[in-house]
Amino acid sequence: MAGGLKIGIFDSGLGGLTVLRELLNVSQGVEYYYLGDTARVPYGIRSKRTVIKYSLQCAQFLNKFEIDLLIVACNTASAHALETIKKNFPHLRVEGVILPAVLEVANLKPSRLGIIGTPSTIGSGIYKKLIGRFLPNSKILQKATPLLVPLVEEGLNETPLAEEVLKHYLSEWKNQIDLLVLGCTHYPLLKKTIKKLFPRWEIVNSARPLANVLKPLLDSDKDKPNRVSLFFTDRSAFLESFLTNIGIKEEIEGLEILNWEE
Amino acid sequence: MAGGLKIGIFDSGLGGLTVLRELLNVSQGVEYYYLGDTARVPYGIRSKRTVIKYSLQCAQFLNKFEIDLLIVACNTASAHALETIKKNFPHLRVEGVILPAVLEVANLKPSRLGIIGTPSTIGSGIYKKLIGRFLPNSKILQKATPLLVPLVEEGLNETPLAEEVLKHYLSEWKNQIDLLVLGCTHYPLLKKTIKKLFPRWEIVNSARPLANVLKPLLDSDKDKPNRVSLFFTDRSAFLESFLTNIGIKEEIEGLEILNWEE
Repeated sequence: MAGGLKIGIFDSGLGGLTVLRELLNVSQGVEYYYLGDTARVPYGIRSKRTVIKYSLQCAQFLNKFEIDLLIVACNTASAHALETIKKNFPHLRVEGVILPAVLEVANLKPSRLGIIGTPSTIGSGIYKKLIGRFLPNSKILQKATPLLVPLVEEGLNETPLAEEVLKHYLSEWKNQIDLLVLGCTHYPLLKKTIKKLFPRWEIVNSARPLANVLKPLLDSDKDKPNRVSLFFTDRSAFLESFLTNIGIKEEIEGLEILNWEE
Repeated sequence: MAGGLKIGIFDSGLGGLTVLRELLNVSQGVEYYYLGDTARVPYGIRSKRTVIKYSLQCAQFLNKFEIDLLIVACNTASAHALETIKKNFPHLRVEGVILPAVLEVANLKPSRLGIIGTPSTIGSGIYKKLIGRFLPNSKILQKATPLLVPLVEEGLNETPLAEEVLKHYLSEWKNQIDLLVLGCTHYPLLKKTIKKLFPRWEIVNSARPLANVLKPLLDSDKDKPNRVSLFFTDRSAFLESFLTNIGIKEEIEGLEILNWEE
């Protein structure tokens, strides 16, 4: 690719930055365009119809940068809108965050596992269905955990309150599962606290597996730095601390707050 | 008023229904049009600019019903958008939820009080400023409590988890205040749990004081039932349980899910 690889990434808000972080770790000379729909976050409590509508608007915005690859870095959007995006942008390679996590779980072959995500992602049943195809004899539990996104957005990742909220949702699974799937791109920021509470569990999230799948494509242009342009639909009070938390700073070339729907 | 009083009410989501509930208690023969912007809830984490934009769209929608009175039943919208709405709809009487609560507090004259609300409402400083004008010698604390809206939306109002979250935010005020202002229309659903944890505190919210202010206007058309039309910008998974929780059912004439921004 003459001008270097261009990748568009969108998420309902800030969570997808955990995916961008993993991609930056394994790529060189890539131009990233990240869009966070912070004016309408969270997607995970909305209907399928609304998630599709918002996701198409995000894809359309990123498509203008003549990207080679579009990453849907939001589990809810991946669950509901991936096929519609592919249909509407047939020239574009589109990757969601669900299949990479599913394939990782299939490789690990746990006999008992649990999946957590937003109400919308869990309601779609997509993780359970896909994992069930690979592991038909495994016990698969799933649960919506809607308080976790606000918890992470507030930067409470490693607090006693985070422990209480996680215990509320997960304690009943303590001796029922061996592996936990984090079906939301916000949740990796809670990994340390989950590990503290449930040290026996293996934890799988989408970011690392997705980066591994894309790695052959990403390190094609060595010795050049990555470049990141960030776009958000609203100014979030948590943005600065979020970027610091996950360690994306020096790669940022520009940051713009968009003014949609004027 | 020949055809009976028509009142429009909007909120970022479901919380404003607590205001509608109080109004129904003291009114007769009133036609209510309630709009919940559930496709973009919560407003409380968004910027002032975005809150104003969304609020004007809500006001415009309700104005089509030829309402006599518009109630902004969302504290964040009341904090940021009230003046802009009044300017854009000069023929309309517009009431927010902040001033009625402030006047109630001014009447009660506490010497030490705390205010809780969304990050956006608390960030505006409006409660503290207005109450400070009436009670210049009182100690006024304030705090953003962003996890409370998702907690209520999930129907966890009277659970051990709600107690943990409330303790996280409020324990340090235990012996520092005598009165707590609930600066968000979702929070009245947590009143029982707050009372259990902090029984000594007096609790003020906007819904009852607003209904009292408007009462002379509301009971003008006796012996007729109230009628309620509900509109939402997205289908919320929590809607049914929310309506049951606050006891609005029999007054509902219609419920429509709108399809904005097509």
